[in-house]
Amino acid sequence: MALIVQKYGGTSVASLDHIRRVAESVAARKQKVNDVAVVVSAMSGQTDQLLEMAAKISAVPDSRELDALVATGEQVCAALMAITLNSIGCPAISLLGLQLPLVTDSVHTKARILDLQTDKLKQLFREGVVPVVAGFQGVTEEGSITTLGRGGSDTTAVAIAAALNADCCEIYTDVDGIYTADPNVCPKARHLDKISYSVMLELAGLGAKVLHSRSVELAQKFAVPLVVKSSFGSAKQTWIVNEEDIMEDSVIQGVTLERNVSKISLIRVPDRPGIAHRILSPLADAAINVDMIIQNASTDGFADFTFTIAKTDLEQATRLVEKVATEIGALEVLAANNIVKVSAVGIGIKTNPGVAAKMFKSLSSENINIEMISTSEYRISCVIEEKYGELAVRAIHLAFELEGQPGRLKER
Amino acid sequence: MALIVQKYGGTSVASLDHIRRVAESVAARKQKVNDVAVVVSAMSGQTDQLLEMAAKISAVPDSRELDALVATGEQVCAALMAITLNSIGCPAISLLGLQLPLVTDSVHTKARILDLQTDKLKQLFREGVVPVVAGFQGVTEEGSITTLGRGGSDTTAVAIAAALNADCCEIYTDVDGIYTADPNVCPKARHLDKISYSVMLELAGLGAKVLHSRSVELAQKFAVPLVVKSSFGSAKQTWIVNEEDIMEDSVIQGVTLERNVSKISLIRVPDRPGIAHRILSPLADAAINVDMIIQNASTDGFADFTFTIAKTDLEQATRLVEKVATEIGALEVLAANNIVKVSAVGIGIKTNPGVAAKMFKSLSSENINIEMISTSEYRISCVIEEKYGELAVRAIHLAFELEGQPGRLKER
Repeated sequence: MALIVQKYGGTSVASLDHIRRVAESVAARKQKVNDVAVVVSAMSGQTDQLLEMAAKISAVPDSRELDALVATGEQVCAALMAITLNSIGCPAISLLGLQLPLVTDSVHTKARILDLQTDKLKQLFREGVVPVVAGFQGVTEEGSITTLGRGGSDTTAVAIAAALNADCCEIYTDVDGIYTADPNVCPKARHLDKISYSVMLELAGLGAKVLHSRSVELAQKFAVPLVVKSSFGSAKQTWIVNEEDIMEDSVIQGVTLERNVSKISLIRVPDRPGIAHRILSPLADAAINVDMIIQNASTDGFADFTFTIAKTDLEQATRLVEKVATEIGALEVLAANNIVKVSAVGIGIKTNPGVAAKMFKSLSSENINIEMISTSEYRISCVIEEKYGELAVRAIHLAFELEGQPGRLKER
Repeated sequence: MALIVQKYGGTSVASLDHIRRVAESVAARKQKVNDVAVVVSAMSGQTDQLLEMAAKISAVPDSRELDALVATGEQVCAALMAITLNSIGCPAISLLGLQLPLVTDSVHTKARILDLQTDKLKQLFREGVVPVVAGFQGVTEEGSITTLGRGGSDTTAVAIAAALNADCCEIYTDVDGIYTADPNVCPKARHLDKISYSVMLELAGLGAKVLHSRSVELAQKFAVPLVVKSSFGSAKQTWIVNEEDIMEDSVIQGVTLERNVSKISLIRVPDRPGIAHRILSPLADAAINVDMIIQNASTDGFADFTFTIAKTDLEQATRLVEKVATEIGALEVLAANNIVKVSAVGIGIKTNPGVAAKMFKSLSSENINIEMISTSEYRISCVIEEKYGELAVRAIHLAFELEGQPGRLKER
């Protein structure tokens, strides 16, 4: 007897046929483990369709109402799943964020969970009923519907697993787990059976879209054993667990390529205290995230100031920075979007000085110039010219001896 | 200053363009009357689409989940309406049945209202915000979503108007009110400016689909002034009011034609007590409504037993009745679906004996044979051969001198 929380993403419930296959798998699982709670996303494409309608009405639709609108996607899917489960003899009941309730703050479209009541779920388990929870959504203390941001159904599932002290939280998606690199870029990428929460967080932050970052944070905080599986029948899976449960030979566990990167440089900025703040605060005000920052001071009282942002923010950011550049007397502003960020991710990078050296050597041996570098406990990232991105991934992957069988499924 | 509840049906909110036109009209109305609450149906076609999905999964989908599924139609429309109102500078908030709450019994797919909280609505009025209520839906005391049956948004609107003691409840639809007959059948049908609750109830029961029967019952019970208007710009409208507010010259106010009628006759049934119960109880168990019933006793101890039911129930009912007929020793069972029911509806029919005579005379003067007759306080109905249906409506309409300008819009 065990208690399992299963989450099915949009591609896993894309049609009534998909829903039936999932329902059969849920019913079979319930026979074995006794207590199963299911969390569903909207059927794939539904959320985009609802957002498009809102966008046609207004460029900035009211965020409370946008949440009430898009939350219907998960509600439809949860009800269809419950209808299907009942029709195959597995008693089930759909539950919305409002009905659990899953209480959040009132930051619409990216709310954070404050509280999750489990009374109804526990009651359903006692009655032998499968709760089918509409993911992605919650409710404020005042009773308004909120959503947790794109990918938020992962977070719903982990939150429920944490609150119920579940034996594990299974995330079903269209890939069969985490690979050492994107198999499309690096055909020798190897499937990982295990990965640590921390490394997974870095991967999620670097654009590996298998898991929502917040769900990994939450799983780590509450020590929820998390496993990523394919709902399309692969036997492979990846467990996301504590660092101490990982016994890898290699420090490095994966290589990522982030393409949504661009940079802005201010040339010959007068080198005075407060300059970084002057340059970056208009971007913060416009909710533009700045990633890597480099300031090269020169001896003549001037500095070059360079930072990276998402490609999608480049146009707006350039306009804001050009205004500041004039005010502070910088010589010129250079914007570039022909760059990518390649990263090696793993455990204990800072305490293994050889890792950085090996990464730089692998790039230089391919004559790839490194424009910017940043490091963290779990990651070294290099900004390089876009055209070398895929070559760089393969070179680093080879240098750290991550090769295995060719991967069969790609990251979404 | 007044308090108005407006209800917009599915055809009035069929597209984003329709929703924008409605929003502009709501905003303009709010300027004038101060407090406006809006109730919306699902965009036309949405409910059917959701029901079709459920039907593909199961012939008898779980009714709790069916309600959770179809309630999303009104939720989507309420959110889109609130987004639109906000985008044109009219503050608005969507509210679901769950959020008001509008509490119902737990008879899923045709729940009845038990309680309606108005605190949130009153608070929004104080703040100058337009509440946009998702019609058709409620919530049980246990927190499950329910729906009020097809056309239930009318009932939501009237219930809110009653609970708020509103000055009036406006039902916007694709016709501009009630006519003395279907203008498609009777080109000389006259628009009615006023009609009594009781007569409207008979009309709704006879297939005039402009208003949901329960909404009229509720309006009558709580004396809510109700008005049916077109959302497509006609200046005409029909008020539904108390009988004492009607000062019509004519007793008869309308003529209806119900096509969804069929009949079953059991020939030479042994005339014993309890036979009617034996014949009809299997139909009641199968939730088949029996309308008119006639038993012709003969002198030799046998009777013919005839009743009408909806055409859509004929096949199932015939099977059930044939089984009983064998058991009770009836000679044969005859089923016929080539019939219709034509009715004259008005105030004080029973107390005006001339009315029935005039109706029968008008039919006989066209050589139309009357197969069955039933009467009530507000109605005389005759079952006749289907092919004479439209002719009968025109003949009765003429006999009671109901002619007026040709009607421009037909009943839905």
